[in-house]
Amino acid sequence: MTIRVTKFAIPEILFGRGSVQHLVSCARGLGAKNVFLVSDAGLEEAGWLSKLRKMIHAAGLACVEFCDVTANPRDFQVHKGAQLYSSSEADVIIALGGGSPMDAAKGIGIVASNGRTIADYEGANRIERPLPPMIFLPTTAGSGSDLSQFCIITDVRRKLKMSIISRSLVPNISIIDPDFLVTKSVSLIVDSAIDALAHAVESFVSIAASPFSENQARLALCLWRDNIDEAARNRSSTALENLSLVGAAAAMSFSNAGLGVGHALAHALGGRLDLRHGMMHSILLPAVMRYNRSHCLPKLREVMHTLYPTRDFHNEQDLLEGVHSLERHFEDLGVPVRLHSVLPDKECLPEVCEAAANDVCMLTNPRQATVEDLLAICNEAW
Amino acid sequence: MTIRVTKFAIPEILFGRGSVQHLVSCARGLGAKNVFLVSDAGLEEAGWLSKLRKMIHAAGLACVEFCDVTANPRDFQVHKGAQLYSSSEADVIIALGGGSPMDAAKGIGIVASNGRTIADYEGANRIERPLPPMIFLPTTAGSGSDLSQFCIITDVRRKLKMSIISRSLVPNISIIDPDFLVTKSVSLIVDSAIDALAHAVESFVSIAASPFSENQARLALCLWRDNIDEAARNRSSTALENLSLVGAAAAMSFSNAGLGVGHALAHALGGRLDLRHGMMHSILLPAVMRYNRSHCLPKLREVMHTLYPTRDFHNEQDLLEGVHSLERHFEDLGVPVRLHSVLPDKECLPEVCEAAANDVCMLTNPRQATVEDLLAICNEAW
Repeated sequence: MTIRVTKFAIPEILFGRGSVQHLVSCARGLGAKNVFLVSDAGLEEAGWLSKLRKMIHAAGLACVEFCDVTANPRDFQVHKGAQLYSSSEADVIIALGGGSPMDAAKGIGIVASNGRTIADYEGANRIERPLPPMIFLPTTAGSGSDLSQFCIITDVRRKLKMSIISRSLVPNISIIDPDFLVTKSVSLIVDSAIDALAHAVESFVSIAASPFSENQARLALCLWRDNIDEAARNRSSTALENLSLVGAAAAMSFSNAGLGVGHALAHALGGRLDLRHGMMHSILLPAVMRYNRSHCLPKLREVMHTLYPTRDFHNEQDLLEGVHSLERHFEDLGVPVRLHSVLPDKECLPEVCEAAANDVCMLTNPRQATVEDLLAICNEAW
Repeated sequence: MTIRVTKFAIPEILFGRGSVQHLVSCARGLGAKNVFLVSDAGLEEAGWLSKLRKMIHAAGLACVEFCDVTANPRDFQVHKGAQLYSSSEADVIIALGGGSPMDAAKGIGIVASNGRTIADYEGANRIERPLPPMIFLPTTAGSGSDLSQFCIITDVRRKLKMSIISRSLVPNISIIDPDFLVTKSVSLIVDSAIDALAHAVESFVSIAASPFSENQARLALCLWRDNIDEAARNRSSTALENLSLVGAAAAMSFSNAGLGVGHALAHALGGRLDLRHGMMHSILLPAVMRYNRSHCLPKLREVMHTLYPTRDFHNEQDLLEGVHSLERHFEDLGVPVRLHSVLPDKECLPEVCEAAANDVCMLTNPRQATVEDLLAICNEAW
């Protein structure tokens, strides 16, 4: 008998339209008197940041804001935020935004509580002291940072995204209000939803998947299938709410089961080229599924059967046709499906694949991939 | 638009055969130096308690034991345990056992941290101060106390079981080791599994169900269907492991969605008659499903379709036949299906139903039930 122990950890979740109204009572429950609010310029423009600011001030809480966060947050931004956090004597971190402000907030929490620089914590389980209490409000339905043990920060000098994984990176509370999605563009909604789909697929076939994580991945796949087209076409509130659920369920899966070569490559490409993370997976996921198929055929067949329930996936050929259908579906959604459409040439690929091979997401991929394998995936997706 | 915010909270979970080996590192992670170990005589007999004791001592931790816990733990047992906890200056509570030692441990934590008597916390959200850190190791696959916000303690004077519900009753860590089930009798395994089934069904149709809780209930139903007969016949380790998953998934569902009239009645009957809680639901669940059917027909049809996937449940008649099949299934499993087999006469029923009507589980039942309705359910199950 093999002893196989799996872990499953998620934050406390508040879910639903209007749930943002519970922010202040959640913060108070964590002992907040002086909150540190991390967000970005886009949320300020959309009016959400001032809404939060008003709620916080109306409750008599002090608030320090940090919005110097770009997409693909940089190490130096994290260090600047950590200094501000420490000098302002804040007590609870609140992050409002997509993956970038949320990951920046985690990075700030790491450095503020543990010292040194953010690069010192790259990899798995290297954080020793607990972070400040954290409440995250995701405004996209893809990154899953509000639920996950992951934090992705760009190392500017090395031109790569560092994956930092630790149980202590799960925030205390995630407040998921689907109304945030209403102010987002269709392309951002679709990109995020495909990121969430990649989370579900990669974590479902991960060697660290557990019955608990698999169940979340299945929910994400069902709801993705039933809502992506309606959300892209009409942005109906029900479809957006269901895509919020997709993002959350997929995050509960990948946070506990890990990811695979698709995310390793996306981190390496994103670190080097500063591309929006969400747009990587419509390009990479089909090639990644084809690459992995020899090592997780039954599970990929279940993925395909969930996405296309009226079709049969008896053998490998059926599966390949299913992956092809998914690729066509991505095209219909108007997102890039070829790597050449986002890269000028193939010159950087060897370096990208070297960096990807060192990403911690490689460890849970069902098929052990070499740098050459990763290059072959990139060439197939070219 | 109705604003509907749902909450979902669970502890960190370690799941798998052999996971008990991680107990000490989990306790250390919570700062343990002097643990308070709650269990009962049955676990001592089965040898599990001495195994834990050795692990704790070998790690250099002090340990105070409290095993004066019966089935359906009493208020005075909780008070005695709380006194011992306080006088021994313990820092982390570890509970090993079925629902009784785990609920007793919660009660001890409540009184030790909040003072007064356990009856002062009956109902929802009445606990103000946080409990000591808690690690629970469930040895049956039914109660779900290791994952839930519920604590059920018998009030000896009033002869009823008090339901105490609070976010702060979720332990920090649940270590679910299916190997514990190996030392259990078939009848205890089946009773617990039917309790878990009732958790899944009642929480699935609860008015507070959310997409997250529903997803857990569905997993519980699928795994119950596929494993109950094999577990009852052969106690194979795979079937027992899957029943552990049933108990856990059903608990994640009911802890967050609440229960219904079945559990309200079971608490009232159990408080008065000191019957094993698990054996109540083979008697009550069919009548409860028939009572609720007018108010949650689509969801009950989904329950039935999950339990009997080859059959159609187009209308109410199909549903009633499905409930009948489930009742026959319970009989085949050798558990009681009529109330008269566990009660001497109907004399106590009016008082039982009065008590049940005040149980907090009534609030989330899909159909608002009067005392007369509850009496009718008991008469139908008689």
